[in-house]
Amino acid sequence: MSDLISKTIANIEPTDSACREAAIEHISRLTMPPWALGRLLDVAVDLAGMTRSMEPPTTQRTAVVVAGDHGVVAEGVSAFPQEVTVQMVHNFVNGGAGINVLAQQAGAVVVVVDAGVAGDLSDLVEEKLIVNKRVAPGTSNMAKGPAMSREQAVRSVEAGIEVALDLANQTDLFATGDMGIGNTTPSSAIVSVLCDMPSETVTGCGTGIDEPARRQKADTISKAITLNKPDPSDALDVLAKVGGFEIGTIAGLILAAASRRKPILVDGFISTAGALIAQGLCPISTDYMLAAHQSLEQGHAIALKKLDKQPLLNLDLRLGEGTGAVLCMHIVDAGVRVMTQMATFDDAGVSESAS
Amino acid sequence: MSDLISKTIANIEPTDSACREAAIEHISRLTMPPWALGRLLDVAVDLAGMTRSMEPPTTQRTAVVVAGDHGVVAEGVSAFPQEVTVQMVHNFVNGGAGINVLAQQAGAVVVVVDAGVAGDLSDLVEEKLIVNKRVAPGTSNMAKGPAMSREQAVRSVEAGIEVALDLANQTDLFATGDMGIGNTTPSSAIVSVLCDMPSETVTGCGTGIDEPARRQKADTISKAITLNKPDPSDALDVLAKVGGFEIGTIAGLILAAASRRKPILVDGFISTAGALIAQGLCPISTDYMLAAHQSLEQGHAIALKKLDKQPLLNLDLRLGEGTGAVLCMHIVDAGVRVMTQMATFDDAGVSESAS
Repeated sequence: MSDLISKTIANIEPTDSACREAAIEHISRLTMPPWALGRLLDVAVDLAGMTRSMEPPTTQRTAVVVAGDHGVVAEGVSAFPQEVTVQMVHNFVNGGAGINVLAQQAGAVVVVVDAGVAGDLSDLVEEKLIVNKRVAPGTSNMAKGPAMSREQAVRSVEAGIEVALDLANQTDLFATGDMGIGNTTPSSAIVSVLCDMPSETVTGCGTGIDEPARRQKADTISKAITLNKPDPSDALDVLAKVGGFEIGTIAGLILAAASRRKPILVDGFISTAGALIAQGLCPISTDYMLAAHQSLEQGHAIALKKLDKQPLLNLDLRLGEGTGAVLCMHIVDAGVRVMTQMATFDDAGVSESAS
Repeated sequence: MSDLISKTIANIEPTDSACREAAIEHISRLTMPPWALGRLLDVAVDLAGMTRSMEPPTTQRTAVVVAGDHGVVAEGVSAFPQEVTVQMVHNFVNGGAGINVLAQQAGAVVVVVDAGVAGDLSDLVEEKLIVNKRVAPGTSNMAKGPAMSREQAVRSVEAGIEVALDLANQTDLFATGDMGIGNTTPSSAIVSVLCDMPSETVTGCGTGIDEPARRQKADTISKAITLNKPDPSDALDVLAKVGGFEIGTIAGLILAAASRRKPILVDGFISTAGALIAQGLCPISTDYMLAAHQSLEQGHAIALKKLDKQPLLNLDLRLGEGTGAVLCMHIVDAGVRVMTQMATFDDAGVSESAS
């Protein structure tokens, strides 16, 4: 642990049950049958509990997209070459990626963070188009040894905390996002270790490998876990042995958001691996997480169960970048608007129950 | 049938397969793994096929909320008294209902139609706050005889056609909505007849009746079907015998939207019953329907299967009014934005496949 991580965790408190109760009571008086807007109302109650407000703010929205590279791509785990990570960071900066389009629709600012990309991004850093939190130029190959040192794991989590604390005053609603060729491999490894499931069960097809390649990927993960012996009771050890820089940074984003009582929409599989690391470091940090969507990656449902979260959307998304998370901002906004703007039975003169 | 209905149906053509293919081809060149935004992309292709455009317009949005009353409430099928239909129409006009809040978020205009409410709404008609398409002050009690005459059934469908044709020039994207105490009963009856399922299987708890009341409701529906003998091969006969005015009007909205090549988001259970009537009158009208959400009503999944539609959202909604449909407008908009605004691999200089 480090001072920054410890201090951040010390600032995380559970959501406020009195505020949750008040929200439930208010919603029960709105002009609709009991809980007839279902999960929109659940989300509204969650936000009341997180923000301690009956009018939770949601207008300032930030999607933090964290990029990193992975030494394990040497094992042939991805359908795309590593250079795509750098190319996609340029695509983010130029506004052409899925996250740009969907963030603009949701009124969210996109902040791109280099947590450890293998290629050169110094031009974008100099122009202040991305945030430089580079731990190293990509992780080491977990099939040959630890993905990173414990110090690097700490540094990647601190990076996320620093970014989110910098953004917290101008953010009501955070979304996490990721970019990193090969990063479903460390994510599957983290889920395997922290959810105590065989790698075969939690390893999917990522950006589009075929079934033989998927089985080889699961085998690579299994061997990496056997070789590195990550300790499931020590989330930083798991992150160091079989994780990734962007995953650690996403964990840090979540911890800092929770410490500032800000809701954070956790995107798909990679972000959820980061959420598992955050949960390992601070179990009540899950109080501030909203699971955005059910990814097609087969380990995702298992990871969400460990977090005790039900995703809001199920639209067969598997892009990452935070795309599912910003899409969910409309749903979160809808829930809050319903709670704060609908008329009550009394206001509207509507009869409340059977005559 | 009537001239207006026949003419409208004659104008409905299947969606354009060349436009769908062109959309699929364009999407395959966007900077993401194959079909990585899943159902957002399916929706974009659907809209390209419906509108015959690679840039389907979605900015002008209209939610049509159709109200009607039901004689069958005399059998005790609802948790709320009939007067609530009129009260809720006032709530719509005053902007306090769920549909108002969610339509405003989605940038949709709410148009309220009286298709046959039992109470007096002449003040709202005079002030032009609602559209008067009143067939009669509520249907007759289907437990005692047909809910309406065949002429009334025709008139209710024509009403929907008239409303949608009036709105079509200022609408890119329609949403259907309903209000009518007791209207899950005719909806369940329609699903039972058109999907050939026992009433017990397709009858749910509506706005919140308990299990004994639900069983009695299913029994009432079963008896009404036995008494009135609706002909499943004749959708107008089904509508007349066991339907409702707002349900017929929703069917008309859908037919007219399809005839004008406009996508129409079908809300929950009641709207889907209307969609089944539209499908019965014109099977290819389903090409223009988008199923908004999976309702908690148990007959809804069966009805959607008959329409061969998968809902976009599953958020435990059971309010009606068009709330789920307008919430889906964000999803539809997202799909179109992705198709029209994302960079291609070539544009962005991103490598397309494994090295």
